[in-house]
Amino acid sequence: MGVGDVSKRILLGRKLRSAQLGETLLPKRIALPVFASDALSSVAYAPDEVFIMLGIAGASAYAWSWKIGLAVALVMFTVVASYRQTVHAYPSGGGDYEVATVNLGRTAGVTVASALLVDYVLTVAVSISNAAQYAASAIPDLIGHEVLVATIAVVLLTAMNLRGVRESGSFFAVPTYLFMVAILGMCAYGFVLMLNGSLPDAESAELHIRPEEGWEGPLNQIALVFLLARAFSSGCAALTGVEAISNGVPAFKRPKSKNAATTLLLLGLIAVSMMMSIIVLANQMAIRFVDPHKLEQLRTAGGDAVAEDYQQHPVISQIANGVFQDFSPGFYFVITVTGIILVLAANTAFNGFPVLGSILARDGFAPRALGSRGDRLAYSNGIVFLAVMAIVLIILFDAQTTKLIQLYIVGVFVSFNLSQLGMIRHWSRHLATEKDPGERRRMQRARAINTFGLGLTSVVLVIVLITKFLAGAWITILAMGFFFLLMQAIKKHYDRVSEELAADETDKALPTRVHAIVLVSKLHKPTLRALAFAKATRPNALEGVYVSVDDKETAKLLEEWDDRNTGIPLKVLHSPYREIIRPIVEYATAIRQANPRGVVAVYIPEYVVGRWWEQLLHNQTALRLKGRLLFTPGVMVTSVPYQLRSSELAVEREEREEHRVRPGDLRRGRVEDERDRQITR
Amino acid sequence: MGVGDVSKRILLGRKLRSAQLGETLLPKRIALPVFASDALSSVAYAPDEVFIMLGIAGASAYAWSWKIGLAVALVMFTVVASYRQTVHAYPSGGGDYEVATVNLGRTAGVTVASALLVDYVLTVAVSISNAAQYAASAIPDLIGHEVLVATIAVVLLTAMNLRGVRESGSFFAVPTYLFMVAILGMCAYGFVLMLNGSLPDAESAELHIRPEEGWEGPLNQIALVFLLARAFSSGCAALTGVEAISNGVPAFKRPKSKNAATTLLLLGLIAVSMMMSIIVLANQMAIRFVDPHKLEQLRTAGGDAVAEDYQQHPVISQIANGVFQDFSPGFYFVITVTGIILVLAANTAFNGFPVLGSILARDGFAPRALGSRGDRLAYSNGIVFLAVMAIVLIILFDAQTTKLIQLYIVGVFVSFNLSQLGMIRHWSRHLATEKDPGERRRMQRARAINTFGLGLTSVVLVIVLITKFLAGAWITILAMGFFFLLMQAIKKHYDRVSEELAADETDKALPTRVHAIVLVSKLHKPTLRALAFAKATRPNALEGVYVSVDDKETAKLLEEWDDRNTGIPLKVLHSPYREIIRPIVEYATAIRQANPRGVVAVYIPEYVVGRWWEQLLHNQTALRLKGRLLFTPGVMVTSVPYQLRSSELAVEREEREEHRVRPGDLRRGRVEDERDRQITR
Repeated sequence: MGVGDVSKRILLGRKLRSAQLGETLLPKRIALPVFASDALSSVAYAPDEVFIMLGIAGASAYAWSWKIGLAVALVMFTVVASYRQTVHAYPSGGGDYEVATVNLGRTAGVTVASALLVDYVLTVAVSISNAAQYAASAIPDLIGHEVLVATIAVVLLTAMNLRGVRESGSFFAVPTYLFMVAILGMCAYGFVLMLNGSLPDAESAELHIRPEEGWEGPLNQIALVFLLARAFSSGCAALTGVEAISNGVPAFKRPKSKNAATTLLLLGLIAVSMMMSIIVLANQMAIRFVDPHKLEQLRTAGGDAVAEDYQQHPVISQIANGVFQDFSPGFYFVITVTGIILVLAANTAFNGFPVLGSILARDGFAPRALGSRGDRLAYSNGIVFLAVMAIVLIILFDAQTTKLIQLYIVGVFVSFNLSQLGMIRHWSRHLATEKDPGERRRMQRARAINTFGLGLTSVVLVIVLITKFLAGAWITILAMGFFFLLMQAIKKHYDRVSEELAADETDKALPTRVHAIVLVSKLHKPTLRALAFAKATRPNALEGVYVSVDDKETAKLLEEWDDRNTGIPLKVLHSPYREIIRPIVEYATAIRQANPRGVVAVYIPEYVVGRWWEQLLHNQTALRLKGRLLFTPGVMVTSVPYQLRSSELAVEREEREEHRVRPGDLRRGRVEDERDRQITR
Repeated sequence: MGVGDVSKRILLGRKLRSAQLGETLLPKRIALPVFASDALSSVAYAPDEVFIMLGIAGASAYAWSWKIGLAVALVMFTVVASYRQTVHAYPSGGGDYEVATVNLGRTAGVTVASALLVDYVLTVAVSISNAAQYAASAIPDLIGHEVLVATIAVVLLTAMNLRGVRESGSFFAVPTYLFMVAILGMCAYGFVLMLNGSLPDAESAELHIRPEEGWEGPLNQIALVFLLARAFSSGCAALTGVEAISNGVPAFKRPKSKNAATTLLLLGLIAVSMMMSIIVLANQMAIRFVDPHKLEQLRTAGGDAVAEDYQQHPVISQIANGVFQDFSPGFYFVITVTGIILVLAANTAFNGFPVLGSILARDGFAPRALGSRGDRLAYSNGIVFLAVMAIVLIILFDAQTTKLIQLYIVGVFVSFNLSQLGMIRHWSRHLATEKDPGERRRMQRARAINTFGLGLTSVVLVIVLITKFLAGAWITILAMGFFFLLMQAIKKHYDRVSEELAADETDKALPTRVHAIVLVSKLHKPTLRALAFAKATRPNALEGVYVSVDDKETAKLLEEWDDRNTGIPLKVLHSPYREIIRPIVEYATAIRQANPRGVVAVYIPEYVVGRWWEQLLHNQTALRLKGRLLFTPGVMVTSVPYQLRSSELAVEREEREEHRVRPGDLRRGRVEDERDRQITR
């Protein structure tokens, strides 16, 4: 088998290398794009939402937009400042979940975890829906098919993540830096034009916005506050994803915390400058942007409604179209990188999900299997779950970013709040014991920052809850509640089991004797091997056991058995109805009952095959038998494998599987050395 | 746990009883209905098909119908006579498959098996489609929804068979005898009316049948022969199901073969008298019956086509409607029992399928798991497969019996032919050694009967192939070919494996030493039990192995380990990436490599839980680890179970499962004693 040999050598070559899997820590310039794509991508939709909300009262309300922008920027810097404290205090990368659990207890931790779970689903739904809108603004043929485009994109992302895509620094760095260049470059060019006085109007500049009913004319105080509150809470969508860095501290180069904090500050600065630039330019270019479901608000100069087929493009798209009027490659470049960064943001959810899952598994809030990296099945289930939920949302909400945003922000601010509260507790606890005045001052400052942060984010959370509850936030809260209860139930189960299993002093008794039985179906190599292995363990009693369903076959086997002269007696159990399992279970039970302090060791010869359909043809009875014997007290079940030739295929497949990259590896600092791969391939 | 105790006692009570599961052999009066429903139900559609075929040349051709009926009766008696020889020669109940395999070899046997498999699917499709038509003739609201009705019926039958329905003699006896009473009673009453001269005309008597194009006017010899051949081959649908008794000889009371042969004769007599009575009455009542897809052939007295919404009812339905003109309960009784007998006929396929599957599994042509009665999963898969295929056919052929019949008869006659040929070989072989002249005469007579049978059935097969190939028989032949190849491939695989596994003289070497490792995740009862069990086997080396993913937890465990003072060393494997499986597999491999003649015994403590969702929360890693270790040469894997309280639920469930009746139990003579059930319940 030449091919077999070669594949074996390749295999073994790779197997040796596997020990060299190493940690690659990220410098700031790579860490920024790895962790920032989610947060930065928000500028693709946050300004649009501000304009939509203000537009309810007509285009005149747009005058408030930059003030709203400043308010969002204030929240952004506050949150950034708060998380800079977190990364110093919790360099282990547990993020909000760890902060809440350690300082506020299990309930708060699980609340944060359920908020994060819901958030991951929404990140996928919002980012991909938004990306579909950008795609449609560049390729008019896609207009009206956004749901389909978004669904296909989620399916592709899912496939990619199931397959295992090698994430590398450059995988994130190139598109993220291109996005920064595109947006900031576009804005800079726009400002130059503005100073020149040659900034063109946007495509929608000639339109008017008819205020919604009840919002016409000068607004009273309460209405105005409510309007601004709604616009502000929508604008806070820009904050989603900021917390990502606090989960990724271990992946940073040393000094980890310091580098993470610096990166966080950079991220805040870039995000805010992008958002403010876009808002200012949009105002200067007199963009008119309304809820895509209420296009009838838009009126032509004559006061008529716009044409039925009027296409409203996203704000960035309109700006790019205006600024790059005579240079369409510029327009396409901006749209393309915006779309890519949104897809990348969605991908971070696919990465974050298994990481969170493994942390929750470690603490007993999720199935333990999620905790070990190797369990691809668990990973796959999580990824498919995430994708299915996101697709459901996309279809349900018609791939409309505006509608999905209503669900998005609650979860984010729930974890912001609990995290800040946790940090305040953290500093207070440390202050209680800390004596060094310098250190105390640092802690007091940090606590002040977190207190201010909590104040601000709690106000935002209240605003978000008031303005968005009926618009969709209730769905988020319901989903969070579901995950919360599920995780508590899992934890409770594990605790109960753990209590039942706790060792006490009565467990020291040693079984007095071992009665071994070897299951015989035929007298072939696997059976002989099982007999040999069983004999090697030198049990107190050893016998072969054969279930007879056919007299002729039984006679033949008995003859062969005698010929072999193994020195081991063969017990024949008769089963007129061709039942295999029951007679064996009953026999094992009988042996055990005769000697309650002994152990029955059942040896099952198994063929090991490599192809899935071979599995269907073999070992099904052995599998069921093992399942049944496990329920029989005092019995232990030993599988004695006999590897058939085809089993090599499976070993090979398994090796490939182990080497496969799993989502989230990069942000846990787990990267295979690139050169190493080259050599072994 | 009061409830637990009670349920345990009930459980143990039942467990003891399980040894008393006994054989209940069927007396002739019960065996007839059990095995006859399929064959008798054919009279619900076979006469209709004869009339349809003859009607192609106009109603005048109906004059041939009773001659066709006689020809079919001749074939019926010939086949019955042939199978009477079979039940004497092969009382083991292997039926056609056994006869063909033993006498003609493996290829013929597999051919018969694939014909039977296809037949089972068609039995379900034809019987249920026909039942739907009877239902529609009694309940006009169902007209036009026959496909839906048939599909729902198949789904219900499937659910019933998956759930496991207790078949009993009366389950079959009541409807089958009612059917005989209904049909023969109706015919008898019809004949009385006929002799009285008061037999009314059928509802369709006033219509004319316009011959199809090319069939008008006096037919030439060839056309006439072709017409009669088609009608005859359709009429042969009456023979489907006759062979069932030959598969069920072991379920008969002694003398088994004699009783089976008598029942077979009875079955033939009843079927023929029903069929002939129906044909004669239909002629006397001037029934007009055409292909339901060519209703335009029917003309009113004025020569116009019948109304678009004309409803053509099945022949039995029209006769019943006429005969019981003034007594509608009589009509509904006939239709209802006909419908029931058709459903019962479909149910026999659900019963026959697993029986055939287990025989094929025994011989290595089907997955071995099908061979043991206990494997519900295998049963379920077979039943679902059968149902899905039948539903596909029903939908594809619009639940039209006429169309499905074209596919049906080929398979039946393929097995008739091979079975007859096998019987001839059988007698010839026995004649070669038999000396006793009386016995020789008996054998020669039997051989003559089978030879005549082969002659006749081969002519029928040729006629069927010629007249039905393009009309649908090609689909059957294709499907048979598929099953044939699949079974051969499975056999080949098993043969190859068996060759690879065959014991030779080199397998006598005994491993020199056993190195036992016990996997430790925590120091709880399951681990302590695994350590105790492993120690009881007195291996040459014994150690605990712990995979460390967290330094703090590791330190804690090491401390507990020391406190326990088990006397067993603990090996700690470090795994920075939270991988559990790979370090263990590599460690086991390393031990084995250091001592190639030794065995590594890996002890895995397992919790045994009772609920499916608990399974998801536990043992997933153990399961994967076992899967991986099986591929590692020189390793045996021992599961040491620790039964948690909830595991009792699973034991209970399993017990219930074992007591559940499986499709086909009755006809394999496996029936639980009724009184016994009463007591233990």
